[in-house]
Amino acid sequence: MLQRYRGFLVDIDGVLVRGGQVLPGAVEALADLRTRGPVLLLTNNSTKSRVGTAERLRRAGIPVEPIEVLPSSHVAARFLRTQFGGVRFWYIGEEGIPEEMKAAGHVLVPPEEADWIVVGMDRELTYAKLRQALRALLRGARLLATNEDPTFPTPDGLVPGAGAVVGALRGMGFPPEVVVGKPSPIAFQVALEVLGLAGKEVLMIGDRLDTDVAGAQALGLDTALVLSGVTQKADLEKARVRPTYVAADLAALVQGALIPG
Amino acid sequence: MLQRYRGFLVDIDGVLVRGGQVLPGAVEALADLRTRGPVLLLTNNSTKSRVGTAERLRRAGIPVEPIEVLPSSHVAARFLRTQFGGVRFWYIGEEGIPEEMKAAGHVLVPPEEADWIVVGMDRELTYAKLRQALRALLRGARLLATNEDPTFPTPDGLVPGAGAVVGALRGMGFPPEVVVGKPSPIAFQVALEVLGLAGKEVLMIGDRLDTDVAGAQALGLDTALVLSGVTQKADLEKARVRPTYVAADLAALVQGALIPG
Repeated sequence: MLQRYRGFLVDIDGVLVRGGQVLPGAVEALADLRTRGPVLLLTNNSTKSRVGTAERLRRAGIPVEPIEVLPSSHVAARFLRTQFGGVRFWYIGEEGIPEEMKAAGHVLVPPEEADWIVVGMDRELTYAKLRQALRALLRGARLLATNEDPTFPTPDGLVPGAGAVVGALRGMGFPPEVVVGKPSPIAFQVALEVLGLAGKEVLMIGDRLDTDVAGAQALGLDTALVLSGVTQKADLEKARVRPTYVAADLAALVQGALIPG
Repeated sequence: MLQRYRGFLVDIDGVLVRGGQVLPGAVEALADLRTRGPVLLLTNNSTKSRVGTAERLRRAGIPVEPIEVLPSSHVAARFLRTQFGGVRFWYIGEEGIPEEMKAAGHVLVPPEEADWIVVGMDRELTYAKLRQALRALLRGARLLATNEDPTFPTPDGLVPGAGAVVGALRGMGFPPEVVVGKPSPIAFQVALEVLGLAGKEVLMIGDRLDTDVAGAQALGLDTALVLSGVTQKADLEKARVRPTYVAADLAALVQGALIPG
């Protein structure tokens, strides 16, 4: 059934890697997908830029080019560029945000001069950063969240995701004006723009019903759920969201070994 | 009209002090109130214990005894003691939480052994603390929030309140099981217990419609709103909540100089 599609969006965590390990058959399956059309790795992870994300994957044993990855850091920079031109920004997050923002022509300024605060997962989060963000938001700065993933999987277990930072700002009275990461339509719109394809021509492959599948369906994409990440078969039976296809993992999907829905 | 009441609950920030300064006439008004019945200073601030809160007020120029103050740190410790006996706890917050919790017979343990995580405003908040809390919550620890105040007023402006910490945990998928601070009924129930009075015998005096007034009314207390804190007359006209009395400040209230509603 993969021949129906002209391009593929593939989530990273739970599809290609899990807990720091490449999933069995994932590299070969990715190579197979590329013979069928362009592949874009769409991830809510904003800690790295496109270059940094590709490097991280290559080090893990998955050969990919920067142009094949679309982290939410890049989606954020591109969205702001398209909507507002170059903006003056400050951020709470890791290196991916300033790298992508500067590459898109935005200018990093102190929080008291920022028109936009861009936030993502930040393993160096402190009270001082929240205080600076609060001051900027009280002054009228606008807030963009790269994503709201509650947690992030590591080999040592789950750690706080971007949702912790966004939640802290919500708890101070400032919900984000824009969220660009999945399930936001912005993530999928930018991905389709990069691929140059329409939604119905593209298959989204992911491990999460609430972000990968629900978000893609809202834009008319077909979806494939793989059970190699956070979603178990039992979760699927309880869920209202129905992916187009279900497979044990990416290798099984590419081989056409589907699990009947 | 104050002769109708046998006891008084008085908020601190915006009623007695504002931006680090004692409000004009507040000390004399407090002394006057004490001649009419017991006074309890009820504050959502959990950064200090009862002893610490009284010290802070005395240093600011307001003579009070520890038994006259009821910070949310003490409410939390007392609530857990009453409901669950002594508990094994870990916390994100300042010194008021462990001081009160230990004084109530609870035992401070590492996060991986805690049955309860108690959280409040923490000017030393870090990612590492959030990560430890997440691990404990994933393991089944229960979550108590001293309060959810979004911000905290300082002479230098607003800074992140307990709401930032609680929001971060909500953003990771863990809303608090219990919130004890205003407007929670728990704050007022504990205050009435301490006073040994029924709700209709007590007047709550505060500067916030959403916490002081709405919370007290839900338990049948009469309320007096003072306009020396965050609420302006214009806010009052727009609000659905109607305090029993309105006065410019505590001094005016005690003198019977009410603002017609």
